[in-house]
Amino acid sequence: MNFASDNAYGVSPEIIEALAAVNAGAVGSYGGDETTARLGEKMSEVFEKDVAVFPVPSGTGSNALSLSTMVPSFGAVLCHEEAHINVDECGAVELYCGGCKLIGLAGTGAKLTAEGLTERLAGFVRGDHDPRRSAVSITQATELGTVYSVEEITAIGDLCKENGMRLHMDGARFANALVSLGCTPAEMTWKAGVDALSFGVTKNGGMITDAVVFFDSALAEDFDRRRLQGGHLIAKGRYASAQVLAYLEDDLWLDNARHANSLAAKLSARLAAVEGVRLHTKTQANEVFAVLPPHVHQALQDAGAIYHCWPPNQNSGPVPAVPGEVLARLVLSFGTAEADADQFIEAAIGAS
Amino acid sequence: MNFASDNAYGVSPEIIEALAAVNAGAVGSYGGDETTARLGEKMSEVFEKDVAVFPVPSGTGSNALSLSTMVPSFGAVLCHEEAHINVDECGAVELYCGGCKLIGLAGTGAKLTAEGLTERLAGFVRGDHDPRRSAVSITQATELGTVYSVEEITAIGDLCKENGMRLHMDGARFANALVSLGCTPAEMTWKAGVDALSFGVTKNGGMITDAVVFFDSALAEDFDRRRLQGGHLIAKGRYASAQVLAYLEDDLWLDNARHANSLAAKLSARLAAVEGVRLHTKTQANEVFAVLPPHVHQALQDAGAIYHCWPPNQNSGPVPAVPGEVLARLVLSFGTAEADADQFIEAAIGAS
Amino acid sequence: MNFASDNAYGVSPEIIEALAAVNAGAVGSYGGDETTARLGEKMSEVFEKDVAVFPVPSGTGSNALSLSTMVPSFGAVLCHEEAHINVDECGAVELYCGGCKLIGLAGTGAKLTAEGLTERLAGFVRGDHDPRRSAVSITQATELGTVYSVEEITAIGDLCKENGMRLHMDGARFANALVSLGCTPAEMTWKAGVDALSFGVTKNGGMITDAVVFFDSALAEDFDRRRLQGGHLIAKGRYASAQVLAYLEDDLWLDNARHANSLAAKLSARLAAVEGVRLHTKTQANEVFAVLPPHVHQALQDAGAIYHCWPPNQNSGPVPAVPGEVLARLVLSFGTAEADADQFIEAAIGAS
Amino acid sequence: MNFASDNAYGVSPEIIEALAAVNAGAVGSYGGDETTARLGEKMSEVFEKDVAVFPVPSGTGSNALSLSTMVPSFGAVLCHEEAHINVDECGAVELYCGGCKLIGLAGTGAKLTAEGLTERLAGFVRGDHDPRRSAVSITQATELGTVYSVEEITAIGDLCKENGMRLHMDGARFANALVSLGCTPAEMTWKAGVDALSFGVTKNGGMITDAVVFFDSALAEDFDRRRLQGGHLIAKGRYASAQVLAYLEDDLWLDNARHANSLAAKLSARLAAVEGVRLHTKTQANEVFAVLPPHVHQALQDAGAIYHCWPPNQNSGPVPAVPGEVLARLVLSFGTAEADADQFIEAAIGAS
Repeated sequence: MNFASDNAYGVSPEIIEALAAVNAGAVGSYGGDETTARLGEKMSEVFEKDVAVFPVPSGTGSNALSLSTMVPSFGAVLCHEEAHINVDECGAVELYCGGCKLIGLAGTGAKLTAEGLTERLAGFVRGDHDPRRSAVSITQATELGTVYSVEEITAIGDLCKENGMRLHMDGARFANALVSLGCTPAEMTWKAGVDALSFGVTKNGGMITDAVVFFDSALAEDFDRRRLQGGHLIAKGRYASAQVLAYLEDDLWLDNARHANSLAAKLSARLAAVEGVRLHTKTQANEVFAVLPPHVHQALQDAGAIYHCWPPNQNSGPVPAVPGEVLARLVLSFGTAEADADQFIEAAIGAS
Repeated sequence: MNFASDNAYGVSPEIIEALAAVNAGAVGSYGGDETTARLGEKMSEVFEKDVAVFPVPSGTGSNALSLSTMVPSFGAVLCHEEAHINVDECGAVELYCGGCKLIGLAGTGAKLTAEGLTERLAGFVRGDHDPRRSAVSITQATELGTVYSVEEITAIGDLCKENGMRLHMDGARFANALVSLGCTPAEMTWKAGVDALSFGVTKNGGMITDAVVFFDSALAEDFDRRRLQGGHLIAKGRYASAQVLAYLEDDLWLDNARHANSLAAKLSARLAAVEGVRLHTKTQANEVFAVLPPHVHQALQDAGAIYHCWPPNQNSGPVPAVPGEVLARLVLSFGTAEADADQFIEAAIGAS
Repeated sequence: MNFASDNAYGVSPEIIEALAAVNAGAVGSYGGDETTARLGEKMSEVFEKDVAVFPVPSGTGSNALSLSTMVPSFGAVLCHEEAHINVDECGAVELYCGGCKLIGLAGTGAKLTAEGLTERLAGFVRGDHDPRRSAVSITQATELGTVYSVEEITAIGDLCKENGMRLHMDGARFANALVSLGCTPAEMTWKAGVDALSFGVTKNGGMITDAVVFFDSALAEDFDRRRLQGGHLIAKGRYASAQVLAYLEDDLWLDNARHANSLAAKLSARLAAVEGVRLHTKTQANEVFAVLPPHVHQALQDAGAIYHCWPPNQNSGPVPAVPGEVLARLVLSFGTAEADADQFIEAAIGAS
Repeated sequence: MNFASDNAYGVSPEIIEALAAVNAGAVGSYGGDETTARLGEKMSEVFEKDVAVFPVPSGTGSNALSLSTMVPSFGAVLCHEEAHINVDECGAVELYCGGCKLIGLAGTGAKLTAEGLTERLAGFVRGDHDPRRSAVSITQATELGTVYSVEEITAIGDLCKENGMRLHMDGARFANALVSLGCTPAEMTWKAGVDALSFGVTKNGGMITDAVVFFDSALAEDFDRRRLQGGHLIAKGRYASAQVLAYLEDDLWLDNARHANSLAAKLSARLAAVEGVRLHTKTQANEVFAVLPPHVHQALQDAGAIYHCWPPNQNSGPVPAVPGEVLARLVLSFGTAEADADQFIEAAIGAS
């Protein structure tokens, strides 16, 4: 019963097979191979637009590299205060941008709003003594498992345009958000004003790759050099591209995300019915955030359930109120067995 | 007949199998898994010393990250002017060190010497206006396929100690050099004064990983944060560690290197006998550098041979002298078929 | 009637004279002159300890350079959210530290407390995914004109030691704070746990220089190179050193600060008595923060008073409550004429 | 008899007076003052074009900041291998550009040529694995006291345009070069293709300031933020601007340079006639480079002459050939007394 992270689970068999399938022969290195060429076509098809796609081995690398195309050393990125780029990446964006500033905003459900951004921008009153407001970064699905609607993204996208800012999306759980909304990839991104996307693959069944997707080709201009300089150009590029390609083909990415989301919905609903348990955040993708009473937490630990106790976020929902209560983050993944979710619920019910 | 790059070839079947073998179950992410723990033990066994090992997805990342532990923003790295870090990595070391300076030295066979280094250090006459001389980086095997002897490394290692400098080894082709010398990994590294090693895996049969190995634990102190900040911490760490582990187990790395080196030796010897062909550099590992007369070059192209024409290095051997002559770099890899080498030689002989 | 900034005023005549006095002859450049040597002695005398002192042309440069000796690329500085380094320096610390993170904390009167810091440090729960907590930076006097007591600094200094962190003091208004407390420079700094100080000169009568003072010589080790690399080594060093030396000699710095503080105390007391005016923050050094009703603000503007309307800080005192009210920052400097302060008060009284 | 550096001498009295003259009253800080406004007009008049001018306290800061507008992290600057930015600034350009690469070229008289640059650019054969060739930087007058002709600059400017590169001029000794050529400031800069200039003031009579001048306003767009971030925005801006303004007014800068150049010409001619002395480089501005035989060097030392013994540059002229010979750099400044030059020559003659 491992609910600690999407990354705790392995790799979709289809992706392992794809790696074996491209293994024969000698091909161009550093992305000069046919698999990489096909990935470009497939990604453009998925997004209904000619996009520039660059595999990058990690989500942190994808975020930092894509933001470095938008944010100068003296610039600022506005993001949620709980954003992965702000609290989990040890200064990666700051390194790649040469010393920029991340400005974290509060916001319910780990989400920014156009209103909150407008208010913060009004605080830029020092002229050239303020950093240049260069970009907004949103996470879809968010760090609290919530999902921006297309309308919410569009409102932020419009705000960015009006203020000469770029919009970046950290899509570490892009597929989970997409199937949650039921819209198209285009609607959730460039049609809503997104300029660049960190396209998550690893968490939802990949092995060692995510990808950066640019919807504005101007941002992609020097990206080959940036990626190489960061050490993120993969020498045997076919093995990165093959992962992303297999992930997209035959809707593997959507199937994987649907499995995870549906387990999360089920777990969330049943957990909310357990006496003493309070949902902290509405479950919209593949993560459940719930406040567990001490005896339930203890019973789950005894039953071998693995999950993280989250630092309570006081703006977004109920928090631990009595000693021993915890705010549990339960991540459901493409690889989580339904039986594990069932066993978890039974242990919770048994304790209450 | 592809002799363009070690990276043109695929992945050793044993490594593909190892990836499939670790795929089951849920384990700790970000390196908190058993495979990664075993890798630490295995690497320490290989080097006969407790070492700190960190998988990193690329050689460029390995070089830049390991040098960043030794070289401050205001420091300098002395390396060969043709070193990969100096001419092929688009400023990666400079980025990771926050703006340091790479000082490229000339040297026969793409090798530094203790004498050459001593002479260059004598040019640091400006006191605090010179950058701090922080590290020396050598490539083993070198960019011209030559190999430093243990004595040569030791002389450079001693020089570094005397001058308060660190010694880094770019071991993108570490195994090829090792089997060429026939010494132990310990003798070629820490016993000779090497502080940190970029341990190459990809070029010699890996998929998407190299590794940084520290022989001085002080350098490893903050490396987890550096690697994360660079975006080089792999979320599903078992798939990086499994590659390196399979590479080391059952001497796969040594067998692969022996195959490549032995093909290179054979190709080199036979090519040198072709009329009009001159070897540019003594073949010591898995690369052959040869000046080809125009008609031989043309015949090889017609026969479908793929290889790079190298920018001539005027200090290290014969150079193209008549129009149409080229300095060809021929890379033999673990995956190169002996038949391809034979076919290449026959085409060359046929043309002369 | 200019209350906009300490920087609006000119230079103490004694400092102008000192520049002329060192103008004769040819001397060593880049700090190799006798004036610079004397400055080192004088500063050690002032601080009752052998200190290392380095003139730097600006306060921003002093802050960024001194923090760069303490904070690695993957580190974090804890400071007040309104700290000058956080909101007025356009990412200088981030640039000089190679991409570090400034973590702004709330706190009454623009002051950090040991308790607030302890609470924030408890939020470092992500292990190596959090930046390394490297330093705390406090501003003395603060951005709201308040002053840390020696006990408050000591509590923060102790906290830093316990947590392996360094303590930096931004002393842009160091002299104003010092005469406010009536303690010795040693008591306000190294005896309380301060490791490095940005020693302000410009705001209190200097021309183009502040200085960095290190109380721990280990931090000074590479500072000559850092300062040169930042472009902050002054070629004709005598003219920087002469400013600081004249500033310290004959208690010019203390006299200047006493003048400014005493005008501020007087203005503050009389302003608080004006009907409708509320003091926002207790006046402890040379700045007065007051909420002015619309008609008073208008009358002052009409009378030609120049001052900044501050972004309201909601945690620290009264804020503008009706349309037209402003939070005014009034800075009194060594050069402000008492008549100007009197005229200001009369205009305020006349309007009420 | 100090010939060590232009920076060994003091400040022109006119500049000291100008500082005193702007000292009265309260004015806008950070460059919002009338003196700074007048400087903009004066500089545009000098260059016969609307230019953007920004005082910066040092030449190193001016070089690094101006190049940071042209050179990305993954870019390269081509310069002479002996250029001040390459060997005397401890990595300043690399820091400000976020990790770029300086590529040093050989060249007689410390000068680049269009031919040498063309040849070096032909070595950019690795596509995106090479850094982006972003800028060329030339020093006028050079580090060996030679001067680029307008034709030479124009040839380099044309080459830059053809290759999509920018041209930067390090004008630490701009005035010395200008009076040497006898052309206009416009002819020596933007009319010849220069995009940005580090305009030297300190060495030729200033106190603590140089300035950056942009001939292409696009480069100046974010310069206020860059300068602040680097810590190079002077709070009491009038004192920086007043120095530059006084330097330009009444031809002070040209008169100072003429004095220094004429002493250098005289010293050079007479020194060349001393038996055993060989001129290393043709004297064109205010520096004389000469190889001195041991007994002459000794006699000059005994007579109290102060000068630097230069690291011999083997491409540019005679070098020390017997033990005890030195390559002496003799700098003549606006403040050098003619009597000192005479005394030097007499001591040299007396020894031979």
